[in-house]
Amino acid sequence: MVENTSRVRDALRIDGALPDPGSTPIGPGKKPKALAKLDSAGERLSALQEALYAEGVGGGTRSVLLVLQGMDTSGKGGTVSHVLGLVNPMGVRYSAFKKPTAAERRHHYLWRIRKRLPGPGEIGVFDRSHYEDILVPRVNGLLTGAERRRRYAEIDAFEAELAEAGTTVLKVFLHISPEEQLKRLKARLVTPEKRWKYNPGDLEARGHWGAYAEAYADIFKKTSTARAPWYAVPADHKWYRNWAVAELLIETLTELKPKFPEPGYDADAELAKLKGVGGSA
Amino acid sequence: MVENTSRVRDALRIDGALPDPGSTPIGPGKKPKALAKLDSAGERLSALQEALYAEGVGGGTRSVLLVLQGMDTSGKGGTVSHVLGLVNPMGVRYSAFKKPTAAERRHHYLWRIRKRLPGPGEIGVFDRSHYEDILVPRVNGLLTGAERRRRYAEIDAFEAELAEAGTTVLKVFLHISPEEQLKRLKARLVTPEKRWKYNPGDLEARGHWGAYAEAYADIFKKTSTARAPWYAVPADHKWYRNWAVAELLIETLTELKPKFPEPGYDADAELAKLKGVGGSA
Repeated sequence: MVENTSRVRDALRIDGALPDPGSTPIGPGKKPKALAKLDSAGERLSALQEALYAEGVGGGTRSVLLVLQGMDTSGKGGTVSHVLGLVNPMGVRYSAFKKPTAAERRHHYLWRIRKRLPGPGEIGVFDRSHYEDILVPRVNGLLTGAERRRRYAEIDAFEAELAEAGTTVLKVFLHISPEEQLKRLKARLVTPEKRWKYNPGDLEARGHWGAYAEAYADIFKKTSTARAPWYAVPADHKWYRNWAVAELLIETLTELKPKFPEPGYDADAELAKLKGVGGSA
Repeated sequence: MVENTSRVRDALRIDGALPDPGSTPIGPGKKPKALAKLDSAGERLSALQEALYAEGVGGGTRSVLLVLQGMDTSGKGGTVSHVLGLVNPMGVRYSAFKKPTAAERRHHYLWRIRKRLPGPGEIGVFDRSHYEDILVPRVNGLLTGAERRRRYAEIDAFEAELAEAGTTVLKVFLHISPEEQLKRLKARLVTPEKRWKYNPGDLEARGHWGAYAEAYADIFKKTSTARAPWYAVPADHKWYRNWAVAELLIETLTELKPKFPEPGYDADAELAKLKGVGGSA
């Protein structure tokens, strides 16, 4: 049986308007089913990740880069915990890109990004990414049209480079509603152990919701390529978000067909040697 | 109730002879109990890790570095998967130190180590470490006594630096028997999906078992300090090994008492602002 590796991707690929943030366009529509499905997805994801990792150890150069974007509280961190938490941490390289530091600002915006690319066999995870370098300055009116076009071209060239180097880029927008964000921001403020996740700047960004939506829409239009399209995951329901991102990763990895490498030695000869050695060294 | 954070550490701290690799000196003596205990350890470990991470986000500088050493097949990778796999991958920085590359050999042996230290709030994991730079050349007769003494002094100074910078180092030796290694090497050779983990060099190292044991004994004696003692985890039983490393981490983190940071803003004022914003942005 040939596995269909584009079912979820086809349903969630961005093509014009975004789905409702509370909807479940494909897959489980209720929480218990979604949790059960995530559980079994964990096993498949783990097996695929191990094969990709093994391929890397065996000299392969392929890797996957999951780019997570979304408004504050959209669940980028939660996705990492619940989805990437399903696989061996040996093979996951996580990077958060916050507001650039003074040192980072003295470099090209892709400088800090390039330093955090996944190695062979790894799944890289970007919690925010180079797309912030179009989004934020654009919303804040600090990017001319010409600069924006240049950045689009640079990002396209950058992602072409990644593809050539063997890195498959999976770009995911976690799509929440302003109503859900309000709930989550409140929860962060009233729960002492969640207050560290809140930042007064979040409220400012929230005030520019429409401008961000517009900037995102432009990004989806200009940077969705055949090699690296954008996917929108309705993210008002955390259980749906986790299931969907896990499936997008599984489909991406399944299509890559990662292979356990052929050993660079004669297994039978080694076994014979081992038998000669006996029980104690 | 004051939690005893040194029960497992006291029992496993190396003090002379190593425990039997098949023994269970403290904690569960049977597999089902160990698995159940690891499950609940996962929750405690996760909570502690989250607090440490939050502390780092809030400006804290503390971190933990787990150093895993052991003969081939002793379960360094399995420990990472089963123990570190219990916490949020956002806060785990994993690094494997294999045979140094030509480029790495042109630097001081601590060069590549320093590049991979955990950041604030992170749990760093070293799968092999700077201790290989005493072990391997020593066993291969490439280290004079004077060089060895110098490396011991350098490592002591290095670990003192780490302590001063806020990094607590947890040094764990996964202790397996040659009989168990033989079984695991065979399993790697006869299982096609495990062959990538086998390396003909493993057999050579196995041939020097006694010399490695001696070199390790010397390392434990010379580099067990009050700030960073060595622990031996009997590792013939994977379930015991996982439980023990989880507990060593939990005790270490519990003693640190990581704290969720005080917010750098007025939570009530922010809540009031949020209420003013209303349901949609």
